[in-house]
Amino acid sequence: MRSLVLLLLSGAMCAPAFSNSDAPAPDVSSRVAVNVVADDLPALWALEVLPDGELLATAKNGQMLIVSTSGKPVVEIDGVPEVDARGQGGLLDLALSPDFANDSTVFFSYSEPRESGNGTTVAKARLDRNDNGGQLQDVQVIFRQTPAYRGNAHFGSRLVFAPDGNLFVTVGDRSDSQVRGQAQELGSGLGKVFRITADGQPANGNPFIGTEGALPEIWSYGHRNTQAATIDADGDLWIVEHGPRGGDELNQPQAGLNYGWPIVTYGLEYSGAKIGDGQTAADGMEPPVYYWTPVIGPSGMVAYQGDEFPEWNDAFLIGGLVSRGIVVLHVQDNKVVTEERIPLETRVRDVTIAPDGSIYAIAEQRGGPGSILQLRSAP
Amino acid sequence: MRSLVLLLLSGAMCAPAFSNSDAPAPDVSSRVAVNVVADDLPALWALEVLPDGELLATAKNGQMLIVSTSGKPVVEIDGVPEVDARGQGGLLDLALSPDFANDSTVFFSYSEPRESGNGTTVAKARLDRNDNGGQLQDVQVIFRQTPAYRGNAHFGSRLVFAPDGNLFVTVGDRSDSQVRGQAQELGSGLGKVFRITADGQPANGNPFIGTEGALPEIWSYGHRNTQAATIDADGDLWIVEHGPRGGDELNQPQAGLNYGWPIVTYGLEYSGAKIGDGQTAADGMEPPVYYWTPVIGPSGMVAYQGDEFPEWNDAFLIGGLVSRGIVVLHVQDNKVVTEERIPLETRVRDVTIAPDGSIYAIAEQRGGPGSILQLRSAP
Repeated sequence: MRSLVLLLLSGAMCAPAFSNSDAPAPDVSSRVAVNVVADDLPALWALEVLPDGELLATAKNGQMLIVSTSGKPVVEIDGVPEVDARGQGGLLDLALSPDFANDSTVFFSYSEPRESGNGTTVAKARLDRNDNGGQLQDVQVIFRQTPAYRGNAHFGSRLVFAPDGNLFVTVGDRSDSQVRGQAQELGSGLGKVFRITADGQPANGNPFIGTEGALPEIWSYGHRNTQAATIDADGDLWIVEHGPRGGDELNQPQAGLNYGWPIVTYGLEYSGAKIGDGQTAADGMEPPVYYWTPVIGPSGMVAYQGDEFPEWNDAFLIGGLVSRGIVVLHVQDNKVVTEERIPLETRVRDVTIAPDGSIYAIAEQRGGPGSILQLRSAP
Repeated sequence: MRSLVLLLLSGAMCAPAFSNSDAPAPDVSSRVAVNVVADDLPALWALEVLPDGELLATAKNGQMLIVSTSGKPVVEIDGVPEVDARGQGGLLDLALSPDFANDSTVFFSYSEPRESGNGTTVAKARLDRNDNGGQLQDVQVIFRQTPAYRGNAHFGSRLVFAPDGNLFVTVGDRSDSQVRGQAQELGSGLGKVFRITADGQPANGNPFIGTEGALPEIWSYGHRNTQAATIDADGDLWIVEHGPRGGDELNQPQAGLNYGWPIVTYGLEYSGAKIGDGQTAADGMEPPVYYWTPVIGPSGMVAYQGDEFPEWNDAFLIGGLVSRGIVVLHVQDNKVVTEERIPLETRVRDVTIAPDGSIYAIAEQRGGPGSILQLRSAP
């Protein structure tokens, strides 16, 4: 394991190390030391810590890997279904069963090739490990985003278990202007957050069960492309959605509510043109709790709990592809009270907490190899 | 006037110009062009735009200057009272009378040398201009922060008129641990926001009028060192206080409320030690709306209104000594919904809006000369 220590002023970005206007002092409280756990990996997408401390990772190319934190070679888990890895597609998120210690079950999502295009699909399987890696056993698809579409963008996706054992599934709007409006349609699976059981059934109490023409798995709608999601200390879901040019959004999705895309947004088309009528608010559509312009490129998020960075307990750590680091967002009473940034000079694809409270982050170069970083409090 | 155009990604800080994770595009909406209006000035502290478009400026060394925006030489206004310019002291803030067009009256604050030390004092005078500069006539001290103290730090101060014609005066806690606790005492003028009439009397409706032992000019208390203040579109006061190591605070001071310093803070002593018991919240003390760790070094603030940057209407522009630029903070329903940053690679001491909606900013080098920048939307 190579070790490099970066003395970073989180949040200070390009600022010099003055802690006050007229009384300069280095800000030791925010120094972070970064180690490279593993590099020269394929481009990774998601990371989970297994009970023995080793890392289970998905790679965009369809590989599922065990990456050792104790110096063993990287090994592969066989049996992953075929994925459509073009564009933003591939093997995507990963979640361990809440009872993983007993059932060894992993949930994963991927862009599935289908007859009429592709779409985000969620499957579960038993992880059967051996010295050379292992095998996914009894792979079962439990949920498919519909309709399928011929495209290679905005698949989402994140999988997070709520404390009640239900699974939140975030997906994308498939990007293109001719379909993204379906984010507003309850009969379409594009641009939604779903809430399903571990068997893929609509979860009890879902808001549109019994609404004619509505998909009963829908939890909330009007989302663009959600690649960051986590559960907070109160058990509530939080997501960060990619905006287009500007307008990444932090939302706390509530049952049955509409988060506005593509009717209301703080973003613009990549051309610079308005989206729709250029509205940033409308009746019946929830404003974001917070937004970012320019975008951070949110991808991977976790509510921090740990001893390594006690000052960040309950804060959201949000990986940034564009901001090239981690955003540390402190939220109280559903209000953002401060935003810090940990610059890492690399695109960050996912963020996970290690058992000792240190932080694992997936680093990627655009189109290049992936690596896993570990962040500790600097001595 | 020298002209340099900086193509800046506000908020993006060190980030590259990708507007989305997988669809790079430059963020033209946030480009800012910066001109130098004047340089090689003494270190400036505050800036106001006169009705003819010229700039009235205070310099820390005690000079009051007229800085031309049309190429004329810088000229001086005589008659400024003696100031104690050691440390953070000097000629400080400036406010034009709400009826300046008729009464030519300017209000200004300064660290006044006194028998038992020094303290922040507010005076008013008639500005009598001539071709060579001019003269302050009929200088009257209208308010003195008490008690005086022998020190050279934490004088505050900002002066802002409310729509009702009363004047908010922000001051500091004088920094040293043996006196800063007076920020909690209603009988002391340290660490307060005051609300006075244009004649320096306690404003009608002040919360502690009639409270025995309390200063009747107090509006709110428990403040550390407030060098940024403005009135929002609703007519309400907002301030940003310097934190120590960490914990700059955005507050919206309400009549009679306690903002906690030095009992509760998100900051640390410069040594890294806790302040008091290290509490970040307590009953009866208002939490900040937002805070910054590491600090931005807030000094000078304005609620933007103008045609040059319509996307910033109602947002707070906050000068940063430490963040070396301007923070653009968007607040809705008393919640911060997004924070952008305009990096300027210089300490920023004050921010003011020009009649055409462009932005003037005082730039300073630590211990060096001052300059005035003008920010426009880049073509």
